[in-house]
Amino acid sequence: MSGFQLLLVAGTHGNEINAPWLFDQWDKKPTLIHTSGLNLNKVIANPIARKKCQRYIDKDLNRSFSPELLENYANKDLETCIARELVLENGPRGNNPSQIVIDFHSTTSSMGTSIVVYGRRSVDLAIVSLIQKRLQVPIYLHEGDDSQNGFLVEAWPCGFVVEIGPVPQGVIHNKIINQTLLMIETCIEEINNVINNNAIFPKQLIIHRYFKSIDFPRDSSGLPNAFIHSEVQSKDWSPLSIDQNIFANIEGELFKLHNYSKENDLVPVFINEAAYAEKNIAMILTKKEVIDFQTPWAEDLYDLVNI
Amino acid sequence: MSGFQLLLVAGTHGNEINAPWLFDQWDKKPTLIHTSGLNLNKVIANPIARKKCQRYIDKDLNRSFSPELLENYANKDLETCIARELVLENGPRGNNPSQIVIDFHSTTSSMGTSIVVYGRRSVDLAIVSLIQKRLQVPIYLHEGDDSQNGFLVEAWPCGFVVEIGPVPQGVIHNKIINQTLLMIETCIEEINNVINNNAIFPKQLIIHRYFKSIDFPRDSSGLPNAFIHSEVQSKDWSPLSIDQNIFANIEGELFKLHNYSKENDLVPVFINEAAYAEKNIAMILTKKEVIDFQTPWAEDLYDLVNI
Repeated sequence: MSGFQLLLVAGTHGNEINAPWLFDQWDKKPTLIHTSGLNLNKVIANPIARKKCQRYIDKDLNRSFSPELLENYANKDLETCIARELVLENGPRGNNPSQIVIDFHSTTSSMGTSIVVYGRRSVDLAIVSLIQKRLQVPIYLHEGDDSQNGFLVEAWPCGFVVEIGPVPQGVIHNKIINQTLLMIETCIEEINNVINNNAIFPKQLIIHRYFKSIDFPRDSSGLPNAFIHSEVQSKDWSPLSIDQNIFANIEGELFKLHNYSKENDLVPVFINEAAYAEKNIAMILTKKEVIDFQTPWAEDLYDLVNI
Repeated sequence: MSGFQLLLVAGTHGNEINAPWLFDQWDKKPTLIHTSGLNLNKVIANPIARKKCQRYIDKDLNRSFSPELLENYANKDLETCIARELVLENGPRGNNPSQIVIDFHSTTSSMGTSIVVYGRRSVDLAIVSLIQKRLQVPIYLHEGDDSQNGFLVEAWPCGFVVEIGPVPQGVIHNKIINQTLLMIETCIEEINNVINNNAIFPKQLIIHRYFKSIDFPRDSSGLPNAFIHSEVQSKDWSPLSIDQNIFANIEGELFKLHNYSKENDLVPVFINEAAYAEKNIAMILTKKEVIDFQTPWAEDLYDLVNI
């Protein structure tokens, strides 16, 4: 029997309640999702925050997985402790090890069903290529943003985030549930295809690479004094012209994209994500990139699953 | 000079952030909204909860205004203290008294711009008639539900709630801001019309009276095990047939309205409001009622504003 195991994570943020709810239903009815014999383990990452329907208790769990934090045992906040235990228990060298992790989130932004990868690890690019080929989902590549790190999936040799929206925090929504379910099924099928040597990789992968985060205009006391312009609100993944108005204030003053960047065809994601206001992010600007699929990505993925 | 004053309240729930944001902008630019000389006072009710972007700290402020709670000084939770102070300071017999209060909320439900009144106080019905005539907004009449009481506006001789949605908690949304602004302007204009004897009351008032709250189907451990059916999600104010599927579970099992009520033409409101899950409310069913306008309502309102 293979030593490979897939780890599915939900509830990394306690107020993103759709994936944890689906995991509960799946627990009650193990045949809900066909696993075709795939070894898998699933975890609700922050059950305490979930119970309070808060993103976190002490700090953002999905920024708590940097080696410096995990290895500094003086850090005793709840989320660092959870991160440490998750890695000790479910990490690649844990008691119940998994080699690939998929972390299911929801967002108030109109992201649809989308994927986030962190950097350009070959195994991540190989597996998300398969998912994109099946479902045509957009992929956001988080790269070159030093202000944000310590993401959960980075503590595993392979892994990515699924972001589905729009949905308010604390709301179970039929559409989000169905999208999450389809994504879980597709991920399981494609990983089984890799294990069974049936995967057919695409020739190209389309990603949207991090370019720049933009904060709301703020007043002298640091509070936002403008909102996302109506033409941009809910338009995640739609390219912007440099003359596009991206913010407006209550008196009708407009803030154009070219005040923030002179680049053409930037593509906004995470527009007006509720949890990002505290991170000073009104939206993230990305650049579309088409990457030729590299055979070594697939080879690395085969090596990872065939253990 | 008249002793009449209007009290505008925002941020009664700390994660409903659009009206408080608008109040901040108005503070910075006092000419933002034309008051035409109306005496008014505005208050952010729960600034501590607002700072944390939580609905409340200890308990729901908008269920904390019952006389029993306010007069029992053993109650020291934050929201009871806030309620007591608000009444002492801004209540009809407070240090800085107001006679009418309007409490601005937002909701994750697709309520549009709507009004909530509590019971059938003549002055409330008179004033919301004027607003409905101007803006054609639907009105939910909360009446005959003993499980919920202690609403803020009940501590004033006249007042109502404005509910605007859908918007996620913690998100400033251009549409919600504009709807809130229009509502504030309209309320001020209509109250000025009453004061100046220029108000033209309608012949009829359309309200949706509380009929029944419906909870999510729950499993043996008390957790919801079904979601709002796709045909009902976001369909606030649309009449339901008794054969309508209102919930579905993950296995496709359907829950029809007639399991909850045999009444025809019930109209759902507050469908999937995030904050109501903890109150065991998946939606509130109402019955539409057309009421002939009663002249004494207007007389009572004139008496109230001409002090």
